[in-house]
Amino acid sequence: MAEVKLYGSWSSPFSYRIEVALKLKGVEYEFIDEDVHNKKSPLLLKYNLVHKKVPVLVHNDKPICESLVILEYIDETWEGPSIWPGDPYERATARLWAKFFDEKCVHAMWKVCWSKGEEQEKLKKECTELLKILESTLSGKKFFRTGETIGMVDVTGNFVAYWFGILQELAGLQVFTKEKFPNENLPPEDKLAAHFQARFRAVAASK
Amino acid sequence: MAEVKLYGSWSSPFSYRIEVALKLKGVEYEFIDEDVHNKKSPLLLKYNLVHKKVPVLVHNDKPICESLVILEYIDETWEGPSIWPGDPYERATARLWAKFFDEKCVHAMWKVCWSKGEEQEKLKKECTELLKILESTLSGKKFFRTGETIGMVDVTGNFVAYWFGILQELAGLQVFTKEKFPNENLPPEDKLAAHFQARFRAVAASK
Repeated sequence: MAEVKLYGSWSSPFSYRIEVALKLKGVEYEFIDEDVHNKKSPLLLKYNLVHKKVPVLVHNDKPICESLVILEYIDETWEGPSIWPGDPYERATARLWAKFFDEKCVHAMWKVCWSKGEEQEKLKKECTELLKILESTLSGKKFFRTGETIGMVDVTGNFVAYWFGILQELAGLQVFTKEKFPNENLPPEDKLAAHFQARFRAVAASK
Repeated sequence: MAEVKLYGSWSSPFSYRIEVALKLKGVEYEFIDEDVHNKKSPLLLKYNLVHKKVPVLVHNDKPICESLVILEYIDETWEGPSIWPGDPYERATARLWAKFFDEKCVHAMWKVCWSKGEEQEKLKKECTELLKILESTLSGKKFFRTGETIGMVDVTGNFVAYWFGILQELAGLQVFTKEKFPNENLPPEDKLAAHFQARFRAVAASK
Protein backbone atom coordinates (compact mmCIF):
# COMPACT_ATOMS: atom_id res chain seq x y z
CA MET A 1 0.00 0.00 0.00
CA ALA A 2 1.23 3.47 -0.83
CA GLU A 3 2.55 5.40 2.13
CA VAL A 4 1.52 9.04 2.36
CA LYS A 5 2.91 11.45 4.92
CA LEU A 6 2.18 15.14 5.22
CA TYR A 7 4.72 17.33 7.00
CA GLY A 8 2.59 20.28 7.94
CA SER A 9 1.52 22.64 10.67
CA TRP A 10 -1.99 22.84 12.09
CA SER A 11 -1.86 26.67 12.03
CA SER A 12 -0.73 27.01 8.41
CA PRO A 13 -3.26 27.72 5.64
CA PHE A 14 -0.83 26.20 3.12
CA SER A 15 -0.72 22.95 5.04
CA TYR A 16 -4.48 23.01 5.60
CA ARG A 17 -5.28 23.15 1.89
CA ILE A 18 -3.36 19.91 1.32
CA GLU A 19 -5.41 18.16 4.02
CA VAL A 20 -8.62 19.28 2.32
CA ALA A 21 -7.47 17.88 -1.02
CA LEU A 22 -6.33 14.56 0.49
CA LYS A 23 -9.60 14.16 2.39
CA LEU A 24 -11.65 14.90 -0.74
CA LYS A 25 -9.79 12.14 -2.58
CA GLY A 26 -10.16 9.79 0.38
CA VAL A 27 -6.39 9.33 0.67
CA GLU A 28 -5.21 8.03 4.04
CA TYR A 29 -2.17 9.88 5.33
CA GLU A 30 -0.07 10.42 8.40
CA PHE A 31 0.10 14.05 9.53
CA ILE A 32 3.38 15.20 11.07
CA ASP A 33 2.72 18.47 12.88
CA GLU A 34 5.97 20.41 12.55
CA ASP A 35 7.00 23.00 15.14
CA VAL A 36 7.70 25.56 12.43
CA HIS A 37 8.49 28.46 14.75
CA ASN A 38 10.94 26.68 17.06
CA LYS A 39 12.49 23.55 15.68
CA LYS A 40 11.81 21.99 12.30
CA SER A 41 12.49 18.25 12.06
CA PRO A 42 15.63 17.04 10.21
CA LEU A 43 13.39 15.13 7.81
CA LEU A 44 11.47 18.28 6.81
CA LEU A 45 14.75 20.12 6.19
CA LYS A 46 16.03 17.17 4.15
CA TYR A 47 12.87 16.98 2.08
CA ASN A 48 12.61 20.71 1.41
CA LEU A 49 16.21 21.80 0.92
CA VAL A 50 15.37 24.97 -0.98
CA HIS A 51 12.54 26.56 0.98
CA LYS A 52 12.73 24.63 4.29
CA LYS A 53 8.98 25.10 4.69
CA VAL A 54 5.80 23.12 5.26
CA PRO A 55 3.86 21.59 3.65
CA VAL A 56 5.83 18.68 2.21
CA LEU A 57 3.94 15.65 0.95
CA VAL A 58 5.93 12.42 0.99
CA HIS A 59 4.50 9.70 -1.25
CA ASN A 60 6.38 6.37 -1.23
CA ASP A 61 9.48 8.19 0.10
CA LYS A 62 9.38 10.81 -2.66
CA PRO A 63 8.93 14.38 -1.37
CA ILE A 64 6.87 17.06 -3.11
CA CYS A 65 7.11 20.68 -1.92
CA GLU A 66 5.08 23.88 -2.44
CA SER A 67 1.37 23.68 -1.75
CA LEU A 68 0.11 24.53 -5.26
CA VAL A 69 2.44 21.93 -6.80
CA ILE A 70 1.24 19.38 -4.23
CA LEU A 71 -2.40 20.13 -5.10
CA GLU A 72 -1.68 19.40 -8.78
CA TYR A 73 0.16 16.19 -7.83
CA ILE A 74 -2.69 14.93 -5.64
CA ASP A 75 -5.16 15.51 -8.44
CA GLU A 76 -3.02 13.70 -11.02
CA THR A 77 -2.12 10.78 -8.77
CA TRP A 78 -5.34 9.67 -7.05
CA GLU A 79 -8.78 8.95 -8.43
CA GLY A 80 -11.78 10.63 -6.85
CA PRO A 81 -13.38 14.06 -6.59
CA SER A 82 -11.16 16.88 -7.82
CA ILE A 83 -10.83 20.39 -6.44
CA TRP A 84 -9.72 21.50 -9.92
CA PRO A 85 -12.34 22.40 -12.55
CA GLY A 86 -12.61 19.95 -15.46
CA ASP A 87 -12.43 22.47 -18.28
CA PRO A 88 -8.89 23.68 -19.22
CA TYR A 89 -9.93 27.34 -19.37
CA GLU A 90 -11.64 27.19 -15.97
CA ARG A 91 -8.61 25.35 -14.61
CA ALA A 92 -6.35 28.13 -15.92
CA THR A 93 -8.59 30.69 -14.19
CA ALA A 94 -8.43 28.73 -10.91
CA ARG A 95 -4.62 28.55 -11.18
CA LEU A 96 -4.50 32.31 -11.75
CA TRP A 97 -6.55 33.02 -8.65
CA ALA A 98 -4.46 30.62 -6.58
CA LYS A 99 -1.33 32.48 -7.73
CA PHE A 100 -3.03 35.80 -7.01
CA PHE A 101 -3.78 34.71 -3.44
CA ASP A 102 -0.34 33.28 -2.79
CA GLU A 103 1.85 35.85 -4.51
CA LYS A 104 -0.16 39.02 -3.90
CA CYS A 105 -2.73 38.67 -1.10
CA VAL A 106 -0.98 36.44 1.43
CA HIS A 107 2.23 38.47 1.32
CA ALA A 108 0.55 41.87 1.75
CA MET A 109 -2.04 40.66 4.28
CA TRP A 110 0.56 38.90 6.39
CA LYS A 111 2.90 41.91 6.38
CA VAL A 112 0.19 44.45 7.21
CA CYS A 113 -0.48 42.60 10.46
CA TRP A 114 3.16 42.73 11.59
CA SER A 115 4.04 46.27 10.49
CA LYS A 116 3.63 49.68 12.14
CA GLY A 117 3.02 53.35 11.31
CA GLU A 118 3.59 54.60 7.79
CA GLU A 119 4.53 51.17 6.41
CA GLN A 120 1.30 49.73 7.79
CA GLU A 121 -0.77 52.53 6.24
CA LYS A 122 0.81 51.82 2.84
CA LEU A 123 0.15 48.11 3.20
CA LYS A 124 -3.44 48.74 4.30
CA LYS A 125 -4.06 50.59 1.02
CA GLU A 126 -2.45 47.74 -0.91
CA CYS A 127 -4.65 45.17 0.85
CA THR A 128 -7.77 47.24 0.17
CA GLU A 129 -6.89 47.37 -3.54
CA LEU A 130 -6.41 43.59 -3.60
CA LEU A 131 -9.75 43.02 -1.89
CA LYS A 132 -11.41 45.35 -4.38
CA ILE A 133 -10.05 43.25 -7.26
CA LEU A 134 -11.51 40.13 -5.63
CA GLU A 135 -14.83 41.82 -4.99
CA SER A 136 -15.24 43.33 -8.47
CA THR A 137 -14.41 40.01 -10.12
CA LEU A 138 -16.72 37.98 -7.94
CA SER A 139 -19.59 40.42 -7.75
CA GLY A 140 -22.81 38.72 -8.75
CA LYS A 141 -21.02 35.53 -9.80
CA LYS A 142 -20.94 32.08 -8.25
CA PHE A 143 -17.38 31.58 -9.46
CA PHE A 144 -15.62 30.52 -6.30
CA ARG A 145 -17.86 27.57 -5.80
CA THR A 146 -19.21 25.78 -8.84
CA GLY A 147 -22.32 23.85 -7.93
CA GLU A 148 -22.25 22.07 -4.62
CA THR A 149 -18.61 20.98 -4.48
CA ILE A 150 -15.71 22.79 -2.86
CA GLY A 151 -13.31 24.20 -5.44
CA MET A 152 -9.66 25.06 -5.83
CA VAL A 153 -10.24 28.76 -5.35
CA ASP A 154 -12.19 28.22 -2.14
CA VAL A 155 -9.40 26.04 -0.83
CA THR A 156 -6.58 28.41 -1.67
CA GLY A 157 -8.55 31.57 -0.90
CA ASN A 158 -9.29 30.56 2.65
CA PHE A 159 -6.30 32.52 3.90
CA VAL A 160 -8.01 35.76 2.92
CA ALA A 161 -11.29 34.94 4.63
CA TYR A 162 -10.33 32.98 7.69
CA TRP A 163 -6.67 33.41 8.64
CA PHE A 164 -6.55 37.09 7.71
CA GLY A 165 -9.84 37.68 9.54
CA ILE A 166 -8.28 36.43 12.77
CA LEU A 167 -4.93 38.13 12.19
CA GLN A 168 -6.33 41.56 11.37
CA GLU A 169 -8.50 41.50 14.47
CA LEU A 170 -5.50 40.72 16.65
CA ALA A 171 -3.46 43.42 14.94
CA GLY A 172 -6.30 45.93 15.52
CA LEU A 173 -6.91 46.43 11.80
CA GLN A 174 -10.15 46.89 9.89
CA VAL A 175 -9.08 46.05 6.37
CA PHE A 176 -12.06 43.88 5.67
CA THR A 177 -15.04 43.00 7.78
CA LYS A 178 -17.16 40.42 6.03
CA GLU A 179 -16.26 36.82 5.36
CA LYS A 180 -16.79 35.99 1.72
CA PHE A 181 -15.54 32.43 1.58
CA PRO A 182 -16.82 29.09 2.81
CA ASN A 183 -14.89 27.88 5.81
CA GLU A 184 -15.92 24.41 6.78
CA ASN A 185 -13.46 22.09 8.54
CA LEU A 186 -11.04 24.87 9.43
CA PRO A 187 -8.77 24.86 12.51
CA PRO A 188 -10.63 26.12 15.64
CA GLU A 189 -10.76 29.93 15.56
CA ASP A 190 -9.96 30.36 19.26
CA LYS A 191 -6.94 28.07 19.07
CA LEU A 192 -5.65 29.89 15.99
CA ALA A 193 -6.25 33.27 17.63
CA ALA A 194 -4.34 32.20 20.76
CA HIS A 195 -1.50 30.91 18.59
CA PHE A 196 -1.05 34.16 16.70
CA GLN A 197 -1.64 36.26 19.84
CA ALA A 198 1.36 34.51 21.41
CA ARG A 199 3.41 35.24 18.29
CA PHE A 200 2.37 38.93 18.24
CA ARG A 201 3.41 39.18 21.92
CA ALA A 202 6.76 37.48 21.25
CA VAL A 203 7.49 39.84 18.36
CA ALA A 204 6.46 42.90 20.41
CA ALA A 205 8.66 41.76 23.32
CA SER A 206 11.67 41.34 21.05
CA LYS A 207 11.40 44.87 19.60
CA MET B 1 -10.77 27.46 -36.88
CA ALA B 2 -9.60 28.44 -33.43
CA GLU B 3 -8.04 31.86 -33.22
CA VAL B 4 -4.89 32.15 -31.13
CA LYS B 5 -3.18 35.43 -30.35
CA LEU B 6 -0.15 35.99 -28.16
CA TYR B 7 0.35 39.43 -26.64
CA GLY B 8 4.05 39.33 -25.90
CA SER B 9 7.35 41.11 -26.22
CA TRP B 10 10.30 39.86 -28.27
CA SER B 11 12.70 40.75 -25.43
CA SER B 12 10.79 38.98 -22.63
CA PRO B 13 11.82 35.48 -21.51
CA PHE B 14 8.27 34.94 -20.20
CA SER B 15 6.79 35.67 -23.60
CA TYR B 16 9.48 33.61 -25.35
CA ARG B 17 8.65 30.43 -23.40
CA ILE B 18 5.05 30.58 -24.65
CA GLU B 19 6.23 30.77 -28.25
CA VAL B 20 8.39 27.67 -27.73
CA ALA B 21 5.42 25.73 -26.33
CA LEU B 22 3.07 26.83 -29.16
CA LYS B 23 5.66 25.94 -31.83
CA LEU B 24 6.25 22.50 -30.27
CA LYS B 25 2.53 21.81 -30.45
CA GLY B 26 2.34 23.16 -34.00
CA VAL B 27 -0.27 25.76 -33.03
CA GLU B 28 -0.59 28.67 -35.46
CA TYR B 29 -0.80 32.02 -33.70
CA GLU B 30 -0.59 35.73 -34.26
CA PHE B 31 2.14 37.46 -32.25
CA ILE B 32 1.39 40.98 -31.06
CA ASP B 33 4.69 42.56 -30.03
CA GLU B 34 3.75 44.91 -27.18
CA ASP B 35 5.79 48.02 -26.43
CA VAL B 36 5.98 47.11 -22.73
CA HIS B 37 8.31 49.94 -21.70
CA ASN B 38 6.47 52.81 -23.34
CA LYS B 39 2.84 52.16 -24.20
CA LYS B 40 0.96 48.94 -23.61
CA SER B 41 -2.04 48.39 -25.88
CA PRO B 42 -5.56 48.89 -24.46
CA LEU B 43 -6.33 45.26 -25.31
CA LEU B 44 -3.40 43.97 -23.22
CA LEU B 45 -4.54 46.09 -20.27
CA LYS B 46 -8.09 44.84 -20.73
CA TYR B 47 -7.00 41.20 -20.87
CA ASN B 48 -4.61 41.39 -17.91
CA LEU B 49 -6.42 43.66 -15.45
CA VAL B 50 -4.51 42.46 -12.39
CA HIS B 51 -0.87 42.31 -13.51
CA LYS B 52 -1.01 44.40 -16.73
CA LYS B 53 1.88 42.31 -18.08
CA VAL B 54 2.82 40.19 -21.07
CA PRO B 55 2.42 37.39 -21.97
CA VAL B 56 -1.32 37.03 -22.45
CA LEU B 57 -2.60 34.19 -24.64
CA VAL B 58 -6.01 34.83 -26.20
CA HIS B 59 -7.75 31.69 -27.42
CA ASN B 60 -11.13 32.21 -29.09
CA ASP B 61 -11.42 35.61 -27.37
CA LYS B 62 -10.69 34.16 -23.91
CA PRO B 63 -7.55 35.58 -22.27
CA ILE B 64 -5.13 33.55 -20.13
CA CYS B 65 -2.42 35.36 -18.15
CA GLU B 66 0.80 34.36 -16.34
CA SER B 67 3.31 32.34 -18.32
CA LEU B 68 3.31 29.19 -16.17
CA VAL B 69 -0.50 29.05 -16.23
CA ILE B 70 -0.43 29.54 -20.01
CA LEU B 71 2.07 26.66 -20.39
CA GLU B 72 -0.30 24.34 -18.51
CA TYR B 73 -3.24 25.53 -20.63
CA ILE B 74 -1.39 24.94 -23.93
CA ASP B 75 -0.52 21.42 -22.85
CA GLU B 76 -4.08 20.60 -21.80
CA THR B 77 -5.72 22.17 -24.86
CA TRP B 78 -3.71 21.04 -27.88
CA GLU B 79 -2.53 17.58 -28.95
CA GLY B 80 1.13 17.09 -29.82
CA PRO B 81 4.53 17.01 -28.15
CA SER B 82 4.47 18.21 -24.57
CA ILE B 83 7.12 20.20 -22.71
CA TRP B 84 5.79 18.68 -19.47
CA PRO B 85 7.05 15.26 -18.31
CA GLY B 86 4.46 12.46 -18.49
CA ASP B 87 4.92 11.11 -14.95
CA PRO B 88 3.09 13.05 -12.19
CA TYR B 89 6.13 13.07 -9.88
CA GLU B 90 8.44 14.32 -12.63
CA ARG B 91 5.81 16.87 -13.56
CA ALA B 92 5.70 18.06 -9.93
CA THR B 93 9.49 18.39 -9.97
CA ALA B 94 9.37 20.41 -13.21
CA ARG B 95 6.70 22.69 -11.70
CA LEU B 96 8.89 23.20 -8.63
CA TRP B 97 11.89 24.23 -10.72
CA ALA B 98 9.76 26.54 -12.82
CA LYS B 99 8.51 28.21 -9.59
CA PHE B 100 12.09 28.34 -8.29
CA PHE B 101 13.23 30.15 -11.44
CA ASP B 102 10.34 32.57 -11.51
CA GLU B 103 9.97 33.37 -7.82
CA LYS B 104 13.59 33.18 -6.67
CA CYS B 105 16.10 33.40 -9.54
CA VAL B 106 14.48 35.86 -11.93
CA HIS B 107 13.71 38.35 -9.16
CA ALA B 108 17.21 38.28 -7.62
CA MET B 109 19.06 38.13 -10.94
CA TRP B 110 17.07 40.98 -12.44
CA LYS B 111 17.54 43.19 -9.36
CA VAL B 112 21.29 42.54 -9.06
CA CYS B 113 21.76 44.02 -12.55
CA TRP B 114 19.95 47.25 -11.70
CA SER B 115 21.26 47.82 -8.16
CA LYS B 116 24.41 49.49 -6.82
CA GLY B 117 26.93 49.30 -3.95
CA GLU B 118 26.00 47.43 -0.80
CA GLU B 119 22.61 46.30 -2.10
CA GLN B 120 24.27 44.86 -5.18
CA GLU B 121 26.84 42.97 -3.08
CA LYS B 122 24.04 41.44 -1.01
CA LEU B 123 22.14 40.44 -4.14
CA LYS B 124 25.31 38.97 -5.72
CA LYS B 125 25.63 36.64 -2.73
CA GLU B 126 21.96 35.69 -3.04
CA CYS B 127 22.36 34.92 -6.76
CA THR B 128 25.46 32.84 -6.09
CA GLU B 129 23.55 30.78 -3.52
CA LEU B 130 20.72 30.22 -6.01
CA LEU B 131 23.14 29.12 -8.71
CA LYS B 132 24.80 26.74 -6.23
CA ILE B 133 21.41 25.11 -5.55
CA LEU B 134 20.91 24.64 -9.29
CA GLU B 135 24.41 23.27 -9.76
CA SER B 136 24.31 20.84 -6.84
CA THR B 137 20.93 19.49 -7.93
CA LEU B 138 21.90 19.07 -11.56
CA SER B 139 25.45 17.88 -11.05
CA GLY B 140 25.99 14.63 -12.94
CA LYS B 141 22.32 14.34 -13.92
CA LYS B 142 20.62 14.78 -17.26
CA PHE B 143 17.51 16.18 -15.55
CA PHE B 144 16.95 19.38 -17.44
CA ARG B 145 16.66 17.60 -20.72
CA THR B 146 15.20 14.13 -20.74
CA GLY B 147 16.24 12.29 -23.87
CA GLU B 148 16.24 14.35 -27.03
CA THR B 149 13.25 16.56 -26.46
CA ILE B 150 13.20 20.05 -24.98
CA GLY B 151 11.64 20.09 -21.51
CA MET B 152 9.69 22.41 -19.27
CA VAL B 153 12.71 23.21 -17.12
CA ASP B 154 14.85 24.10 -20.13
CA VAL B 155 12.14 26.40 -21.37
CA THR B 156 11.55 28.18 -18.08
CA GLY B 157 15.22 28.12 -17.02
CA ASN B 158 16.40 29.95 -20.08
CA PHE B 159 16.25 33.25 -18.25
CA VAL B 160 19.11 32.13 -16.02
CA ALA B 161 21.32 31.00 -18.86
CA TYR B 162 20.62 33.39 -21.68
CA TRP B 163 18.94 36.59 -20.49
CA PHE B 164 20.92 36.82 -17.27
CA GLY B 165 24.14 36.07 -19.18
CA ILE B 166 23.58 39.14 -21.33
CA LEU B 167 22.32 41.31 -18.48
CA GLN B 168 25.17 40.55 -16.09
CA GLU B 169 27.73 41.34 -18.78
CA LEU B 170 26.14 44.73 -19.42
CA ALA B 171 25.95 45.42 -15.70
CA GLY B 172 29.65 44.51 -15.33
CA LEU B 173 28.92 41.56 -13.05
CA GLN B 174 30.56 38.14 -12.92
CA VAL B 175 27.95 36.14 -11.06
CA PHE B 176 28.13 33.18 -13.38
CA THR B 177 30.27 32.52 -16.40
CA LYS B 178 29.22 29.28 -18.03
CA GLU B 179 26.02 28.61 -19.88
CA LYS B 180 24.38 25.47 -18.60
CA PHE B 181 21.17 25.44 -20.61
CA PRO B 182 20.27 24.78 -24.21
CA ASN B 183 19.44 27.94 -26.06
CA GLU B 184 18.18 27.22 -29.52
CA ASN B 185 15.74 29.59 -31.22
CA LEU B 186 16.38 32.43 -28.79
CA PRO B 187 16.13 36.13 -29.70
CA PRO B 188 19.36 37.40 -31.32
CA GLU B 189 21.94 38.09 -28.59
CA ASP B 190 23.16 41.38 -30.12
CA LYS B 191 19.62 42.73 -30.46
CA LEU B 192 18.81 41.77 -26.86
CA ALA B 193 22.08 43.30 -25.61
CA ALA B 194 21.38 46.56 -27.46
CA HIS B 195 17.86 46.62 -26.04
CA PHE B 196 18.98 46.25 -22.43
CA GLN B 197 21.95 48.59 -22.96
CA ALA B 198 19.49 51.30 -23.97
CA ARG B 199 17.44 50.58 -20.86
CA PHE B 200 20.51 50.70 -18.59
CA ARG B 201 21.43 54.08 -20.11
CA ALA B 202 17.90 55.41 -19.66
CA VAL B 203 17.86 54.36 -16.00
CA ALA B 204 21.35 55.81 -15.40
CA ALA B 205 20.33 59.12 -17.04
CA SER B 206 17.21 59.40 -14.89
CA LYS B 207 19.17 58.97 -11.61
